[in-house]
Amino acid sequence: MKLEQDILAKNNAYAAQNRERFAAQGVLALNLVSSPGSGKTTLLCKTIEALKGKLDLAVVEGDQQTSHDAERIRATGAPAVQINTGKGCHLDAHMVGHALEKLSLNKGNVLMIENVGNLVCPAAFDLGEAGKVVILSVTEGEDKPLKYPDMFRAARLMLVNKCDLLPYLQFDVEKAIAYARRVNPLIEVIRVSATTGEGMADWLAWIEKGAAAVRG
Amino acid sequence: MKLEQDILAKNNAYAAQNRERFAAQGVLALNLVSSPGSGKTTLLCKTIEALKGKLDLAVVEGDQQTSHDAERIRATGAPAVQINTGKGCHLDAHMVGHALEKLSLNKGNVLMIENVGNLVCPAAFDLGEAGKVVILSVTEGEDKPLKYPDMFRAARLMLVNKCDLLPYLQFDVEKAIAYARRVNPLIEVIRVSATTGEGMADWLAWIEKGAAAVRG
Repeated sequence: MKLEQDILAKNNAYAAQNRERFAAQGVLALNLVSSPGSGKTTLLCKTIEALKGKLDLAVVEGDQQTSHDAERIRATGAPAVQINTGKGCHLDAHMVGHALEKLSLNKGNVLMIENVGNLVCPAAFDLGEAGKVVILSVTEGEDKPLKYPDMFRAARLMLVNKCDLLPYLQFDVEKAIAYARRVNPLIEVIRVSATTGEGMADWLAWIEKGAAAVRG
Repeated sequence: MKLEQDILAKNNAYAAQNRERFAAQGVLALNLVSSPGSGKTTLLCKTIEALKGKLDLAVVEGDQQTSHDAERIRATGAPAVQINTGKGCHLDAHMVGHALEKLSLNKGNVLMIENVGNLVCPAAFDLGEAGKVVILSVTEGEDKPLKYPDMFRAARLMLVNKCDLLPYLQFDVEKAIAYARRVNPLIEVIRVSATTGEGMADWLAWIEKGAAAVRG
């Protein structure tokens, strides 16, 4: 408990530094969190492509092992830095600070931090982001917000992803949204599908609004 | 530090109970925080009157001493419970839980928790609310968000209050908003005046949207 507190206090100090840096640069930083396999990277690739010419995105990829995700991002033309956490189950603000040294961000850029797939630990670690975006795939259970309340409480926005698969599943979207609002009544919700493009316009508009606010 | 941690852990357990209760009741709870004298109570009275017949509001009033504010609220016809914190500089979730026993809330109601005027301690104490609303009066300095970053970071919405006085002051609203976004890039902002009614429609719409989400 004491150790945990020290770790979080240290993390918060690094997070404050990152936040200062984002503010000085005019960069919107989002922290994308989810279970493994929620479709974050595919969604990010589509997002980068859809925003080409309007907004420049950069990505920090967190995974225990491999740099597969950073490679997928780079194939879109966007800069990406891979962080391998090894035994660690989440990104922390110190790691992100180091990743920032390898990225040259400009005013109006958006930094997407794709966290390790884990609905528990990343909830407690502030990375200096403007907000957390939680991605819930409709292939998971709709009770995830009740099982992982800290994460859904910490998030600004929930993306209900892979909505194209709804006809083939028993997933009750309304129930999932009601559960999310039970733990976080003001959470924003957008239903998306990277495959059909459903909801992408709303998601892109949400990012653009945030980027404009930070750019000033 | 250890004591502080224990206090916060205890508070969080009570906050979780309050949150469960609000969810079960279908009640939107907002935690209103500000410096002393920001105009919270006047704004609340106008809000209650403007929403009459549309939404029922109840109020928990926090002050070190006196029940003046609860009396002002009751004069509008809305139920109000006063909590006197004595030496305490903030409401905690346990106090709010007890106040809830004295209020009969129904589905769709909105509970406004007017915290003690203090921009420091209330930031750390979750009361089980859906979100914090920070009120910044234009009669204060526009650098308040930088001086009290924890509070402005914790808030969902900033109300820039007493905007009718802007012609007589040196207050730079754009600067205040930029400072708030430096610590919380996604914070929502509404400029209001309880006196002229400026911005009230936006503020009322914001409340109604939240209440609808919780009511389901």
